[in-house]
Amino acid sequence: MKIEENGVFSSHFKEGKDSDGTCVETQRNVYRDTNAVPRNFDSTTLHLGLKEGQIASRILTVGCPGRAGLIAKVLDKSSPIFSHTSPRGFTTYTGTFERTRVSIIAIGMGMPMMDFLVREARQLVSKPLLITRFGTCGALCPDVAVGSVVVASPGSVSVMRNPDAFLPLPTPSGTSADEIDPIATGGAPHVRPPYLVFAPQLADPVLTQALLGELKEQLGSEHVRRGMNVSACSFYSSQGRRDAFFDDRNEDLLDVLRERHPSLASMEMESFQLLALARASRESVRAAAASIVVANRPTGDVCDEARLAYLERAGGEAMVRALVRFED
Amino acid sequence: MKIEENGVFSSHFKEGKDSDGTCVETQRNVYRDTNAVPRNFDSTTLHLGLKEGQIASRILTVGCPGRAGLIAKVLDKSSPIFSHTSPRGFTTYTGTFERTRVSIIAIGMGMPMMDFLVREARQLVSKPLLITRFGTCGALCPDVAVGSVVVASPGSVSVMRNPDAFLPLPTPSGTSADEIDPIATGGAPHVRPPYLVFAPQLADPVLTQALLGELKEQLGSEHVRRGMNVSACSFYSSQGRRDAFFDDRNEDLLDVLRERHPSLASMEMESFQLLALARASRESVRAAAASIVVANRPTGDVCDEARLAYLERAGGEAMVRALVRFED
Repeated sequence: MKIEENGVFSSHFKEGKDSDGTCVETQRNVYRDTNAVPRNFDSTTLHLGLKEGQIASRILTVGCPGRAGLIAKVLDKSSPIFSHTSPRGFTTYTGTFERTRVSIIAIGMGMPMMDFLVREARQLVSKPLLITRFGTCGALCPDVAVGSVVVASPGSVSVMRNPDAFLPLPTPSGTSADEIDPIATGGAPHVRPPYLVFAPQLADPVLTQALLGELKEQLGSEHVRRGMNVSACSFYSSQGRRDAFFDDRNEDLLDVLRERHPSLASMEMESFQLLALARASRESVRAAAASIVVANRPTGDVCDEARLAYLERAGGEAMVRALVRFED
Repeated sequence: MKIEENGVFSSHFKEGKDSDGTCVETQRNVYRDTNAVPRNFDSTTLHLGLKEGQIASRILTVGCPGRAGLIAKVLDKSSPIFSHTSPRGFTTYTGTFERTRVSIIAIGMGMPMMDFLVREARQLVSKPLLITRFGTCGALCPDVAVGSVVVASPGSVSVMRNPDAFLPLPTPSGTSADEIDPIATGGAPHVRPPYLVFAPQLADPVLTQALLGELKEQLGSEHVRRGMNVSACSFYSSQGRRDAFFDDRNEDLLDVLRERHPSLASMEMESFQLLALARASRESVRAAAASIVVANRPTGDVCDEARLAYLERAGGEAMVRALVRFED
C-alpha cells in the first residue's frame, strides 16, 4: 500500500525526536474561532487534524488504529492513499475502493470521540455524509454467538451512569437529574436511579439494509444478525460489570435493560452517538452501525483471536463495499 | 531519559511491520472474566495494557501523549522508567520523583477514557490511590486569562446533551429522561431540556490545597486560581459551540451554566468523571484536578504555543511534586 499525502500541504503536526528518543510535538498550532468549530491556522480541524480534501463523504469508522490499517488494505492500489494520525488519537486512511472515494477512520473509544468524528467530518465535506461504524461489542443474549456480527437494526439506545444518584441524599440544591422515571431503582420513586436509559436513535434503514446484505454475502447469513444496540457511557459500571472497589449499584442493570428493550442484542460504547448526531444533522448525515461480537455476557464466552482477525478483514471489506456501492 | 521495562515480561503487544510499512498488531490476547474487570491472559488490563508493578499508587493523568512525555522528563534519571503505549490509546510512564514512585498517564479525551484509567488503575494497585489530572480547558469568565492554570476547587459539575430532547415529541414510550428539572429550556416544563446538568462532585480538599501550593510556588500566584470546573460530554454542543449543520439548541447554554454555578471558571471533558469515581471508590481513591487555560470563551483569546509549552513543563513538574510530597 502506497501512502501519500493527498493534499497540497502536509497536515501532519511536526514532530521531533529528542536525544533520548521520546517523540514530542515541536510545533502546535494556535487555533482560531473557539466559539464555533475551531481550526488550526493550517486549516486542519483541532482533533482529527484534517482539512478539506483529506476525508471522503463516505466514512467507515472503527475503534482501533490496527483495525483501520487492516481494512485500508482493501483500498485500490492504483490511487494514492492519504494517511494521517493526529496527536489527539484519530487515524485516517482516505483512498478509493472500486474507484469511489472512501475514508476509514479509527476514533478510539467512547461517545465523545464519535462526536469529534461526526462534527469535524461534517465541517470538512460539502456533500451529504454517509457514516458507518464497524466496532466490537458484547452480546446480551446467549444466542448471539461470539464471532458473529450484529447489525444495529433498528438502531441504538444508550445507558449512562447517573452521577447524581451516587451523591448523599437529600438532593443537593441545583441538581437537575432528579425525578427521572426510576427504571433501575426497583421502583422507589424518591430514589434517584443510578442509571439513565435514553430512547432509541434509529439507524438509516436503507444503509442498514445495505450493510446486512454485504455482510451476509461475505460472512454467510448464519453469522450476521440484526438487533437493537445499547451504547454505554463506560466499559464498567454502565455495562453491568462487577467491581467491589466501587459503589456501582448495577447488579440488575443488564436484566432491566433486556426487559425494557427485548430486542437488545449488542452493547458497546459509540454507535448511539453516531446515530443521534445523524438524526440531529438536518438530514446531512446518514448513518448505520454493525459490531463484531467479541464476548457473550450471559455465557462468558470470548471470541478467539483468529476469528476476530478474520472478521475484521472480511467484515471490514463488506462494510467498505456497502458504503461505496450505496447510491445516495 | 532511559526507557526500560520495569517488569519481568514485556507488556507490549507484539507489533509487526508488513511489507508496505503499515503497522499491524500481530498478536492480540483473548481475555477472560468479561462480567467483572477482565484481563488479558498475560495479566494486563484490557485497555491500559498494564499489570501489577507497572503503575504507581500516585498518578498524574493528562490528555495528550506528548504532554505525558514532556512531564516524564522530570522523573529521576537514576531509576528505571517503565513506558508503554497500549493499542487502545493509553501512554504510561512510571518512574520515581524525589525517590517516590509516580506514574504519568495520557488517556486521550472524554469521560469514558477517564473511567478506563480509574477502574483499571484501581485493579492494579493494592494501596490507596492518589490521582490528579493536569488537562487543558476553556475559561468561562473574561477574567480567567489564557495562559493561567485553574485548580478545580471545590470540584466539578458536568453537562450532558440530552439525546431524548432531540427526538420528536410526544415522548416515545420507554423514555426515561423526562420530567427533569428544565434548567436549560427557558422554563417550559413540558419540553425536555436539551442539556442535563449534574451536581458538583467534590475534589479532595487536602490534595487540592497541595496542588494550589505547588502550582503557585512554581508559576507565580497571579497565574493560578481556583474555580468550579464543568466537564462536558463533548467539545461541541454541550460546550455551547455553534454549528449550523446540527440541531443543538445550545445558544443560552453557557449563560445558564454560569447563572446556576456562579463560581464556574473552567470547562473541559474529563475531571468530573475522575472526581465522581473517587467519590464512589469506597475511600480508596483521592483525586483533584487542574487545567491550563488554552482559550477564553467570552473573549475568544487563545493561548500562544510558547506559553502553553512552558505551562505543560513547569506546571506538570509542580503537579508531580505535589503528588509525591503528599502524605497519605
